[in-house]
Amino acid sequence: MRFKIRLAYEGTAYSGWQIQEKANPPPTIQGAVETALFAVTGEKTRVFGAGRTDAGVHAHGQAAHFDVADTEKHFYLDWARALNAHLPADIRIIVAAPARPDFNARADALRKTYVYNFWLDRHFTPPMLRHFVWSCGKLDIEAMRAALPALLGEHDFTSFQNTGTNIKNPRREIVDLRLKEGGGPEFYKPVLLCLHITATGFLKQMARNIAGFLAFVGQGKLAGDDLEKILAKGDRRALPSPTAPARGLALADIDYGKGKQCQ
Amino acid sequence: MRFKIRLAYEGTAYSGWQIQEKANPPPTIQGAVETALFAVTGEKTRVFGAGRTDAGVHAHGQAAHFDVADTEKHFYLDWARALNAHLPADIRIIVAAPARPDFNARADALRKTYVYNFWLDRHFTPPMLRHFVWSCGKLDIEAMRAALPALLGEHDFTSFQNTGTNIKNPRREIVDLRLKEGGGPEFYKPVLLCLHITATGFLKQMARNIAGFLAFVGQGKLAGDDLEKILAKGDRRALPSPTAPARGLALADIDYGKGKQCQ
Repeated sequence: MRFKIRLAYEGTAYSGWQIQEKANPPPTIQGAVETALFAVTGEKTRVFGAGRTDAGVHAHGQAAHFDVADTEKHFYLDWARALNAHLPADIRIIVAAPARPDFNARADALRKTYVYNFWLDRHFTPPMLRHFVWSCGKLDIEAMRAALPALLGEHDFTSFQNTGTNIKNPRREIVDLRLKEGGGPEFYKPVLLCLHITATGFLKQMARNIAGFLAFVGQGKLAGDDLEKILAKGDRRALPSPTAPARGLALADIDYGKGKQCQ
Repeated sequence: MRFKIRLAYEGTAYSGWQIQEKANPPPTIQGAVETALFAVTGEKTRVFGAGRTDAGVHAHGQAAHFDVADTEKHFYLDWARALNAHLPADIRIIVAAPARPDFNARADALRKTYVYNFWLDRHFTPPMLRHFVWSCGKLDIEAMRAALPALLGEHDFTSFQNTGTNIKNPRREIVDLRLKEGGGPEFYKPVLLCLHITATGFLKQMARNIAGFLAFVGQGKLAGDDLEKILAKGDRRALPSPTAPARGLALADIDYGKGKQCQ
């Protein structure tokens, strides 16, 4: 019996989503969810996530699926409540529901949305936001906005992919890209800048490399026009900006379309 | 030479603002700031705060003052930067400035503003907000709003004061009181409710008892009309609602008026 879940987590204390198969493995989100599942069912169950978030990256709406024995107890169980009772407070199941036997959290995802939080004051970061923003200092928001349209659409994003992967097709389509100022208490309005990126998929650290590129544009170190050259090189070394820190990033949503809704 | 500072902190890891003079004292905000001051100046210096926040209570804009030796080095020092270099990341000095010799962060405060965060979904609290909200479940916001005007103005707030104090005059004036829905990512809009309370002063746990009272009103367990009776009794036992949890509360601002500005 297959279930799909939505979950949120603060990634600060974890070495990312993916379980690391080694002696003394570091804490991971996937590992914590599998441990909670074992506590609930007594079965060793693999949990398949929609996206592999890096160490320190957060999620408002990660999705995953898993299989458990087809029993009446499992059918009627309040899975969100049962799993949350065994999960630490920094990982919370939002909703759990039965899924079709062929639902695949990773393969069926049509679009993913990441949000990257820039904090525009280099000297003061509110303590409550310290794990959730990159305090990069002042940025020229209009220059950054002007650079967004060139990123939209389908491109070979190899230059925005960090090493250590073996992806066959490095083309991805960015379908929506916007910068929102403020959010949160009025106090934060002038200094919080949120980049929302929706794409058909993301290469390794692509969201953080886009955030790093845009920060360089906002600091006047790169122009929006440089993008075409950088993409054409197809090499991470063609991108002079650093990968933006993990703590500013959150996996906000996974879109499965109407057919394979995973709330 | 007297300085005034503004500081923000996440109170989760601290036993409140006030230093506890005993063997193996628990960590406090005041203690941490005094330790940082000692690291900067080599002097043992007392730091006087505007308000004594409880264990687990946060601050966006606490204020304090302290005296240091009148030296040229101290005059030209970037105090915010110097202190932040010695403070843990959950305590940040926002700004530091020379103050008149008679400036007193506590006595000169004209008004203080606290914000209390209610989270209206009992079953799911976003992991990123877990230290900053009270997940009290659904509340009738209109009923709560209707109860606000009766709290405004000057009252004897003894019934909203927890035991363990020795206050001579329990009268305080609430000058502004409002409930704001939402705030934060759009995701949070339907479920985050923020109570802003501005008063000439607060008795011990008065802000948290007002939050507890209003939650009872929002749950239909008390009516706004009950307030008059509760205040008239002048006894904490006349207030049936529990003190709202510390984690939902933040000291948002201290107002010194135009005369004694402490930015």
